[in-house]
Amino acid sequence: MRFELTILGSNSAIPANHRFPSAQVLNVMDRLYLIDCGEGTQMRMTEYQVRRNRIHQIFISHLHGDHVYGLVGLLTTMNLNGRKEKMQLFSPAGLREFLESQFFYSQVVLAYELEFHVVDDQRHQLLFEDGVVEVYSIPLEHRIPSTGFLFREKQRQRNIQPTAITEYGLSIPQIEAVKRGEAVTVADGRIIANASITLPPYRSRSYAYCSDTCYLPQLQHLLRGVDLLYHETTFLHDMVDQAVKTKHSTALQAATLARDAGVGQLLMGHYSSRYKELSPLLEEARSDFPNSVLGREGGQYSDAPEREAL
Amino acid sequence: MRFELTILGSNSAIPANHRFPSAQVLNVMDRLYLIDCGEGTQMRMTEYQVRRNRIHQIFISHLHGDHVYGLVGLLTTMNLNGRKEKMQLFSPAGLREFLESQFFYSQVVLAYELEFHVVDDQRHQLLFEDGVVEVYSIPLEHRIPSTGFLFREKQRQRNIQPTAITEYGLSIPQIEAVKRGEAVTVADGRIIANASITLPPYRSRSYAYCSDTCYLPQLQHLLRGVDLLYHETTFLHDMVDQAVKTKHSTALQAATLARDAGVGQLLMGHYSSRYKELSPLLEEARSDFPNSVLGREGGQYSDAPEREAL
Repeated sequence: MRFELTILGSNSAIPANHRFPSAQVLNVMDRLYLIDCGEGTQMRMTEYQVRRNRIHQIFISHLHGDHVYGLVGLLTTMNLNGRKEKMQLFSPAGLREFLESQFFYSQVVLAYELEFHVVDDQRHQLLFEDGVVEVYSIPLEHRIPSTGFLFREKQRQRNIQPTAITEYGLSIPQIEAVKRGEAVTVADGRIIANASITLPPYRSRSYAYCSDTCYLPQLQHLLRGVDLLYHETTFLHDMVDQAVKTKHSTALQAATLARDAGVGQLLMGHYSSRYKELSPLLEEARSDFPNSVLGREGGQYSDAPEREAL
Repeated sequence: MRFELTILGSNSAIPANHRFPSAQVLNVMDRLYLIDCGEGTQMRMTEYQVRRNRIHQIFISHLHGDHVYGLVGLLTTMNLNGRKEKMQLFSPAGLREFLESQFFYSQVVLAYELEFHVVDDQRHQLLFEDGVVEVYSIPLEHRIPSTGFLFREKQRQRNIQPTAITEYGLSIPQIEAVKRGEAVTVADGRIIANASITLPPYRSRSYAYCSDTCYLPQLQHLLRGVDLLYHETTFLHDMVDQAVKTKHSTALQAATLARDAGVGQLLMGHYSSRYKELSPLLEEARSDFPNSVLGREGGQYSDAPEREAL
């Protein structure tokens, strides 16, 4: 029952120090969601064995090149590999035009459908849901319209005790009903209370992606209790003036937000290429929020262990 | 006195088998010329320590993504790195619009000038010259307008014998005149014949880039005697029907052209991702033109040794 994030690119604008532009894949029970798509994302996917045919939704935070220049190549490769399934894309306005002009000049005609969803970067709202997650926008503030994404696993089903199935001779429809929390009437007419044959569902997990953005303390309400928070940490706090000017965040600011929102873990990234070594960024974040970790290419992160809600 | 080609990407459309989309750098006496720019070219440049501030001309064969999707990222990174020098771009029509639409949606404003030169893909003509090379177009035939590029080193100066400088007390202007092939009148009035104090210039070298294209036997005249010929070898000849249909070439066809043109060496590339192992392509080419080599990422090639023209 996976809920796992893989970092494909951890750097900010300039690829450097063996770090690449922003891209991540969230795996929720083997459904993959791509978040941002900097140049070279398709190569990173190959390197980390990301199964791209399991991706049906791509979430783009904003149209700066280090978050989107890999998208046209990825979509084209998917086409050459015979993709037929629709791809849904969520982003601030302009992504359709941005992609279509590239396809036009390269004379690419996709054999599958792109379904564009324009995200209002000023609002927090439900963007998408499927059988396993709901995805909400997070209003960010950057030099161009930018949105974050909040992934919330859906309420999961109760866990039926395997012995109950044989003991009461439950049918498949009965098992499904029990998983939904219903009582069940067995062959001899007895009504079996749901709680007597089930365990509570595993808790639902959550992941928030906040990049690129300046420090927005008001996000603490929206991010309250999120299991894993990715927040950009472009600079050390001694460059806070530069962060304010370019509408980025410092490691300390991200940690402060993580602490104030009471998240499980802070995942750092979008490092300025000026930092060859990242440990000073990590130390700075941990000074305010100890459960901070550095996102690194190929790293897999989950601060959402499957715990029963007791 | 370098004349050396570095392969940054050797594969065709889909990055696979640790091979990347097309890109090459030609180094002529430390001036660098970039030829094609598939996705990830800037990362390959970092990997192979290509000094990108020495690039002032970029040559794009055609606008298919595997030859151009890395360009916007490279130009943006150059901008972030503070580039101020003009960049000249040579390509079939559409490159300006292709790039400008991407800059528009990403809100990138370059601090340096892009100078676009539209290449007529139907003609062989001089596109560019500087102090060391002349670059000509090579008309190719592909599914969209596509041009090759022929780099010819300029006629080099005669080599003055160092002993002559002291023996005759030559001034700097006199040395320059001698290098240009002139006679010189020395202090005591004697006229010194040029041939008596110089050696012939090193021979000029040449490189031709032909990708993407179907097999064009008529190119043999244009490519006559070229030192190093890069010609696409997308398929083995058992797939010649597919090559004809997609307007690509087979290894055998490239070798036949290399042989008929009497080039020094054939450099292969633009391999279909279906070929995990490339040795069958090499064997096929060598069956018709023994001096064929496989282009590989990071490989450096020069079949133009500095020989004196005796």
